[in-house]
Amino acid sequence: MLSRTVRAQGFFLRSSQLTVKRSFSVTFNMKNAQNRSPTGIVLMNMGGPSKVEETYDFLYQLFADNDLIPISAKYQKTIAKYIAKFRTPKIEKQYKEIGGGSPIRKWSEYQATEVCKILDKTCPETAPHKPYVAFRYAKPLTAETYKQMLKDGVKKAVAFSQYPHFSYSTTGSSINELWRQIKALDSERSISWSVIDRWPTNEGLIKAFSENIAKKLQEFPQPVRDKVVLLFSAHSLPMDVVNTGDAYPAEVAATVYSIMQTLKFKNPYRLVWQSQVGPKPWLGAQTADIAEFLGPKVDGLMFIPIAFTSDHIETLHEIDLGVIGESEYKDKFKRCESLNGNQTFIEGMADLVKSHLQSHQLYSNQLPLDFALGKSNDPVKDLSLVFGNHRST
Amino acid sequence: MLSRTVRAQGFFLRSSQLTVKRSFSVTFNMKNAQNRSPTGIVLMNMGGPSKVEETYDFLYQLFADNDLIPISAKYQKTIAKYIAKFRTPKIEKQYKEIGGGSPIRKWSEYQATEVCKILDKTCPETAPHKPYVAFRYAKPLTAETYKQMLKDGVKKAVAFSQYPHFSYSTTGSSINELWRQIKALDSERSISWSVIDRWPTNEGLIKAFSENIAKKLQEFPQPVRDKVVLLFSAHSLPMDVVNTGDAYPAEVAATVYSIMQTLKFKNPYRLVWQSQVGPKPWLGAQTADIAEFLGPKVDGLMFIPIAFTSDHIETLHEIDLGVIGESEYKDKFKRCESLNGNQTFIEGMADLVKSHLQSHQLYSNQLPLDFALGKSNDPVKDLSLVFGNHRST
Repeated sequence: MLSRTVRAQGFFLRSSQLTVKRSFSVTFNMKNAQNRSPTGIVLMNMGGPSKVEETYDFLYQLFADNDLIPISAKYQKTIAKYIAKFRTPKIEKQYKEIGGGSPIRKWSEYQATEVCKILDKTCPETAPHKPYVAFRYAKPLTAETYKQMLKDGVKKAVAFSQYPHFSYSTTGSSINELWRQIKALDSERSISWSVIDRWPTNEGLIKAFSENIAKKLQEFPQPVRDKVVLLFSAHSLPMDVVNTGDAYPAEVAATVYSIMQTLKFKNPYRLVWQSQVGPKPWLGAQTADIAEFLGPKVDGLMFIPIAFTSDHIETLHEIDLGVIGESEYKDKFKRCESLNGNQTFIEGMADLVKSHLQSHQLYSNQLPLDFALGKSNDPVKDLSLVFGNHRST
Repeated sequence: MLSRTVRAQGFFLRSSQLTVKRSFSVTFNMKNAQNRSPTGIVLMNMGGPSKVEETYDFLYQLFADNDLIPISAKYQKTIAKYIAKFRTPKIEKQYKEIGGGSPIRKWSEYQATEVCKILDKTCPETAPHKPYVAFRYAKPLTAETYKQMLKDGVKKAVAFSQYPHFSYSTTGSSINELWRQIKALDSERSISWSVIDRWPTNEGLIKAFSENIAKKLQEFPQPVRDKVVLLFSAHSLPMDVVNTGDAYPAEVAATVYSIMQTLKFKNPYRLVWQSQVGPKPWLGAQTADIAEFLGPKVDGLMFIPIAFTSDHIETLHEIDLGVIGESEYKDKFKRCESLNGNQTFIEGMADLVKSHLQSHQLYSNQLPLDFALGKSNDPVKDLSLVFGNHRST
């Protein structure tokens, strides 16, 4: 409380005084912080198998998630075993081809650690900040992370969705899982949770994407550089999910538009959708179709994976080895770097968490509507029970 | 040229001097302008029947447009006659129910006139500006307007699409029609054309929508005001158009996000899609479905028609009389005003045309990609032949 007053006064001082005041504030808080339980910063994502051998478990968890792939309320797990077993050899081969596993754990742990380092400096009132990763389908699963947080004495935690765009089938599913683990592992509610449920136009996110695009454009020959078509590619959704009113397609579009504003709309661009599977209709246009159609007509084309922030099988295999690698126009095609360990991006994440912590907001004004529209066989029914302080003692 | 130099110098003067300089510049240009041919400001839109008796002609033109409704390259016109005849009684009844016709001509003419009045003051170097309306399916059709412009001695014209979001089936169709009329009526190319082909986040557009939403929120009881769900409703597209990579869905989403940023995301919101017809799959979620689903769950709901800027049958009949009027939750439902004659909106339009004229850009960097992806049986093949100076003498 005192620290907040000191900081608030500091707000009105001139910059030279502010430096003094700020270092005082940091020292003051750091001393205090040693006795405080850490604030958990929990990066939530779908995850991926870090080693090829983890592929079956990953696929099983994925197909067992009724929120992501609604197969059957009753037989989901049984059917998931069969599908996972059937698909494992093919997917194992893909993970072998991209170097023996998904890099998503490595990047998530790095991002979480760096974000916490920044927060300890910029947000001393909630320090120390402790980094965690909670994956929905791969190690470390939410349950494993939750147990570790309880051991570490975490009392306050931010569930930080690593999907910048909200979909009920991704972030919604992670929140439903978090609620199941709260009930299973923390009935006394020793951890008080809040969530960052979307951040499609976060400043660091947009800046990092824009910088990466500008950098990759330099690899095209100068005469065609301004004509290169920017194909922003996001993971698609089945139309029956889109038709529930899922927030995802419009929020992805907001990210794309914000990047193009930063780039001053210099290049032609389009938002397209990838990774469609199965016979049902999905949201298009499909990335691979548009790339093949434009291939003969354009001088250059750049793929920008826009809905995930780290490299994953959909960039390293589907785009790099598939759409680009197998195209007869591959000489004109390049892929923009994923954000991974990008410093601009990580600073943006830290700013976002800081604003979130200082706002005391538990979740966005959109989230109750997302949960009203979303379909699940085991949903959170009341978000106010999941988030906020419900400590029993 | 002289006038531009004077204005450029004025830029560096202090405000008191600027006033003098500016009025000089206006006087100077107005004198000059009397001898100049007018700059045509042509508001392009689909249009609607101003009188009930014009309904058949409107429907025929609409169904005869292969760019909007691809039926058959060869028999489109014949089939259009049958469909129009079949649908006329139903649609005539709807126009009777909304007061005897579409108000779109009235609003378009008013908007065009007001925009030109502002431009004569703010953009003297291209004055005088002469207002025109060119509809795709109703009077005044593009051909009629083009003939009038030739009579008026217009040498330079801006085709100003009144769809703020580009779709090949709307703005694309209007450009294809403009090209047909250029070839038919102006083979000597006496008019030099440019186009404003999209403006999803124009400042006046966003501000006018935001103001209208804030105003309409005041009509809800104070305790529920912040919980009112904002349903932004845009005309849907068939999925086979979406799947060509049409720009429209993402650009509509950009408008919605920009409005919500202006409103500080205070209310829950969603982008939904209306006016689906026929058996083919269209982009959803559908406005009526989501409204009926949310009806029992929410305290209030506001419909915001987001893809058209004037009232039309889809607002006045489909939303007001249908979705709201026939709902058992109608007491919770309200519709936001359309922009129509909104002064903030008109000033935004004038700013946009001014920037366009001063940029000397013929069309956006996106348009060639739109035309590469769009499907038509009589398309513009080279935009550089349509726009710019091609005067034969």
